[in-house]
Amino acid sequence: MSLAKPYPNLTATEKILLNSIVEGDLVRGSRIGIKAHQTLGHDLNAIMTFLALESMGIEKVDTEVSVQYIDHNMIQADYKNADDHRYLREITSRLGVICARPGSGICHQLHLEHFGRPGKTLIGGDSHTVAAGGIGMFSIGVGGFDAAMAMAGKPLYITMPRIVKVNLVGKLPQLVSAKNIILEVLRRLTVKGGVGKVLEYCGPGVATLNVAERSIIANMGAETGATTSVFPSDAETRKWLAAYGREEQWVALEADAGAVYDEEMTIDLSRLEPLIALPSQPDKVVPVREVAGKKIDQVMLGSCTNTALGDVLAIANALKDRFVSPDVDVSFYPSTRTVIRESIRRGAYDQILTAGVRMFEPICGGCNGCGFAPGTEGVSLRTTPRNFEGRSGTKSAHVYLCAPETAVASALTGVITDPRALDIPDFAYELPDKFIDPGNLFNYPKLEGTDEIHYGPNIKPIPKMPPLEDQLNKPVLLKLPDNITTDHICPAGAIYLPIRSNIPEISRHSFNVVDESYSERAKASDGGILVAGTNYGQGSSREQAAIVPRYLGVKAVIARGFARLHLANMVNWGLLPLVFRSEQDYAAVEQGDLLEIDTSDLKEAEPVRVWNRTSGSSFYVDTPLVQADLDAIKVGGRINTVK
Amino acid sequence: MSLAKPYPNLTATEKILLNSIVEGDLVRGSRIGIKAHQTLGHDLNAIMTFLALESMGIEKVDTEVSVQYIDHNMIQADYKNADDHRYLREITSRLGVICARPGSGICHQLHLEHFGRPGKTLIGGDSHTVAAGGIGMFSIGVGGFDAAMAMAGKPLYITMPRIVKVNLVGKLPQLVSAKNIILEVLRRLTVKGGVGKVLEYCGPGVATLNVAERSIIANMGAETGATTSVFPSDAETRKWLAAYGREEQWVALEADAGAVYDEEMTIDLSRLEPLIALPSQPDKVVPVREVAGKKIDQVMLGSCTNTALGDVLAIANALKDRFVSPDVDVSFYPSTRTVIRESIRRGAYDQILTAGVRMFEPICGGCNGCGFAPGTEGVSLRTTPRNFEGRSGTKSAHVYLCAPETAVASALTGVITDPRALDIPDFAYELPDKFIDPGNLFNYPKLEGTDEIHYGPNIKPIPKMPPLEDQLNKPVLLKLPDNITTDHICPAGAIYLPIRSNIPEISRHSFNVVDESYSERAKASDGGILVAGTNYGQGSSREQAAIVPRYLGVKAVIARGFARLHLANMVNWGLLPLVFRSEQDYAAVEQGDLLEIDTSDLKEAEPVRVWNRTSGSSFYVDTPLVQADLDAIKVGGRINTVK
Repeated sequence: MSLAKPYPNLTATEKILLNSIVEGDLVRGSRIGIKAHQTLGHDLNAIMTFLALESMGIEKVDTEVSVQYIDHNMIQADYKNADDHRYLREITSRLGVICARPGSGICHQLHLEHFGRPGKTLIGGDSHTVAAGGIGMFSIGVGGFDAAMAMAGKPLYITMPRIVKVNLVGKLPQLVSAKNIILEVLRRLTVKGGVGKVLEYCGPGVATLNVAERSIIANMGAETGATTSVFPSDAETRKWLAAYGREEQWVALEADAGAVYDEEMTIDLSRLEPLIALPSQPDKVVPVREVAGKKIDQVMLGSCTNTALGDVLAIANALKDRFVSPDVDVSFYPSTRTVIRESIRRGAYDQILTAGVRMFEPICGGCNGCGFAPGTEGVSLRTTPRNFEGRSGTKSAHVYLCAPETAVASALTGVITDPRALDIPDFAYELPDKFIDPGNLFNYPKLEGTDEIHYGPNIKPIPKMPPLEDQLNKPVLLKLPDNITTDHICPAGAIYLPIRSNIPEISRHSFNVVDESYSERAKASDGGILVAGTNYGQGSSREQAAIVPRYLGVKAVIARGFARLHLANMVNWGLLPLVFRSEQDYAAVEQGDLLEIDTSDLKEAEPVRVWNRTSGSSFYVDTPLVQADLDAIKVGGRINTVK
Repeated sequence: MSLAKPYPNLTATEKILLNSIVEGDLVRGSRIGIKAHQTLGHDLNAIMTFLALESMGIEKVDTEVSVQYIDHNMIQADYKNADDHRYLREITSRLGVICARPGSGICHQLHLEHFGRPGKTLIGGDSHTVAAGGIGMFSIGVGGFDAAMAMAGKPLYITMPRIVKVNLVGKLPQLVSAKNIILEVLRRLTVKGGVGKVLEYCGPGVATLNVAERSIIANMGAETGATTSVFPSDAETRKWLAAYGREEQWVALEADAGAVYDEEMTIDLSRLEPLIALPSQPDKVVPVREVAGKKIDQVMLGSCTNTALGDVLAIANALKDRFVSPDVDVSFYPSTRTVIRESIRRGAYDQILTAGVRMFEPICGGCNGCGFAPGTEGVSLRTTPRNFEGRSGTKSAHVYLCAPETAVASALTGVITDPRALDIPDFAYELPDKFIDPGNLFNYPKLEGTDEIHYGPNIKPIPKMPPLEDQLNKPVLLKLPDNITTDHICPAGAIYLPIRSNIPEISRHSFNVVDESYSERAKASDGGILVAGTNYGQGSSREQAAIVPRYLGVKAVIARGFARLHLANMVNWGLLPLVFRSEQDYAAVEQGDLLEIDTSDLKEAEPVRVWNRTSGSSFYVDTPLVQADLDAIKVGGRINTVK
């Protein structure tokens, strides 16, 4: 560790990073390398991670704890999901990774229950890895290749983020739960307001929230584009760890009094009201009352946010002695086996079931379209973190995001309903001193190290990535608007998720919610360029959103701006990112235009000239990368520099 | 009702039929028309049923009770399932059909709980409708069109079956549950031994089985090809009805002492041992000990058999304080909300969950490939009624059928295990005097009659069926072996089920487990003929197995024999069945042969000559139909004779 100078007045974020920095200085905007104390992966993204680890010849992971969860691709419509699960069980047993069996629970919740430790870093192959900020970790979502590097003990390189102080004051009113805090943050920051920043929560309001509630806020911090969110570790954190039999892992964590923040915002919890995000972006937030009365078709409760014990109990409280509306289909995905058991013990599970709610196993489920897709033009209210177009599995659906009490009130009435309009009893709960069975990952038999690894026919080798040509002379294959998500680039949903480790196959569906002809056109073209607005690549961490364009011959993406996580994936897989200098330059490029770019000598901080051979004009773009990253792209991606 | 003569010595079967016969006489082998007291349908097959009812202009159903369940197509990978569910909710509300909301439970179990009445007839659009034989009904599975006719109050025409007396004596030993009785019946009768017959159970062993256990046996009677199975209505039946708050619906039913049976078999329950059906037919039954030790990959508990309270409690009893093998994925699909609630109350639900079993909502699930498909070449033990090739969703899977105690013992050890080899405590249970909440279909708000019916884009109009040509001169498109199932003709599995009401789309996948080129070849050919062995069309009642060949241009199927239910569907949809007279004639026809048949004047009981223009030979075949049915086929099916 090489720290250039002492840091007397530290934020909580900096205190954790001091624990893990291995390269660079804690200076805002500078490049730093951090080591992961812990890593997590899930079945959807981890196949590529383990294939990369195998190709690197790694024999054991080099972290304090690495955990593999199986919670995303759970439908098993054919052999593919089950083959993936088997491969993960076998490869983790060889590499020293803990593997949770299918049905144990949702990764981010299980991690909070069994592994999350304040003061530690967590690198995970899922964008909602940041949920662990609720327990006082510096947790960050990365693409599969960076997850592999972290598991191999290699540093993760990030730009030291700016740190935003989010000051919580007051206490939430009844029927206004923690979800509304992060909806308020999204309303203020938008889906790109967090880019390059850590949201560090503090203030007296923090103590009114337990770890599960903090984790809802940290989780959906991902939707602002923030690098991560960090909560302090305090008495509530200690209570949480004790409930899961891990009190000895508690350490205190809070910012120093003189900590220096780059920005600051204050939220008075007592003045919040029920909020809702309109389709199809999580920042289109308005008060529920503004859309109250709109007829709904389905409600999805649960997912990696709002599935902890408190959510189950609150939902049961609202549903007691009632029945959901006959024309609304209502589902609940609880978080973990432990929570289900405690909910059964307290009578809550039975109450929810009896009210007409469909109780699923503890998996991600409908959130990323693995089941429970709405009907044609269906209106769906969800407590999940995302509502991107097509993500639910139904392109024409209208998905709203809200807190569970809003979702339940609406399920009861059949229309969007402010929960304060219903006669729902006041609600409070306490964590048990100790959960009945906190050890659902530990106390059960484990598979011993196995020699045989089975690769199903759908687990294809990682495609080879050729170096970047010196001269690009390629057409614009697609011109895209702002806020293109990784769901647009590489679709979510039950039909596509099982083929995500099969690049040739998934590539056939790239951008299908935008332009069904794209994949065929890209393949037919001898390479191409994508043009996009701001915040390109937001959302899920899936690296396939970089691999698939490469596989289809895309050489560069010129955008008004990129999401952090996706930018890292572009470097790993050799897809050149370039940034427009102005809205006018973006506006002047048309789909089909032939662009010429000299990429023979890309230099950090040096502009690149783009010739538009169709319009006969030219403009300058910037490279958003450091030299090492540009060099990596030149050879076809970091995937070609390791090994 | 026109009964030609009194019947002094009646079987239980005949007593029920006397209650519903509207045409013909109770003479074995003669054609009779029966009226349905009750009908049931599920979401997978009922779309076509309701489209038919709509096209007939029916405004209200004409039965005592008609119920629509939503339990099959529950994955909702995209808009299609949810659109189907909405259509069913709306159309049932218009037509006076009770509609169970999604997540209420599995149709056959819900029907036993809430509607099954001894002495009544039940006609259902699902082959396992026969499960209601366990409560003393004459219940019969039909295709969607016949279900529509029954709901419209029209008679169902069947050939009065032969009646087999199945005499049960003795009492089952511990760890040998009711499933082994029907496996023994299947071992003796094979998958075609029941064709044209009713299996009527009697003898002192019957009283040792409760209604749920009887229903397991009646359910899988379908696998013998039997028309249905009938149990008496006795004190156990009364206890069942009382537990569901319906004791007043009980009537006694048993055969007269002098009842005349066509065949007889005796099973000594005390001498049964754990049995198992090998892949991929339910009649390949051997003792478990003969295959003990084989490594397994997954276990599926539940489905429409073995999901009642007794099964849940027995499974929990075997799993108490144990954990399933780390390399086996284990699922449980319980039967109904009522059973889940009672299982929670008795601690069983929690025990099963804690043992590492994945708890699903109460749906058919993996049984017909709606989820939980095994991996490539995966070995799966299931308590479901069917193990046909590809039905699990994985073509290369090896699916075994067995009783829950065998499945659980194997889940614990990781290899096929005779449960008697494990130290499992003795087990017995009693139904509650009254279930906590028997009214999960009644007490909840219902959708009021609605004017607006939404048809999703996947609900296509029923294709028009042209009349049968007078001269067929067509190639043999496929030559098939014995025991071709409706799953072969029109695939099950999560990928295909949602498009089952979309004939053009599902037709692209017909026979894909047999020959992937078939659908394209059939379409390219100007019509064709299929040739098959015995028991063609066994299995599920889906009428698409008749519609899809018609849609692809198939005019006739020449087989060594047909399953009853499929034969009825062929008549409804105008697909000509012809029966080979000898194994030699079947052997002499090759795929690709050009066959010429004069179909200008088909007559009941008159042979038809088939000229093989390729081999230059000819042979005679029989028509297995009465004149009315032949006439219907001539005009393109009964679908063209109604309206």
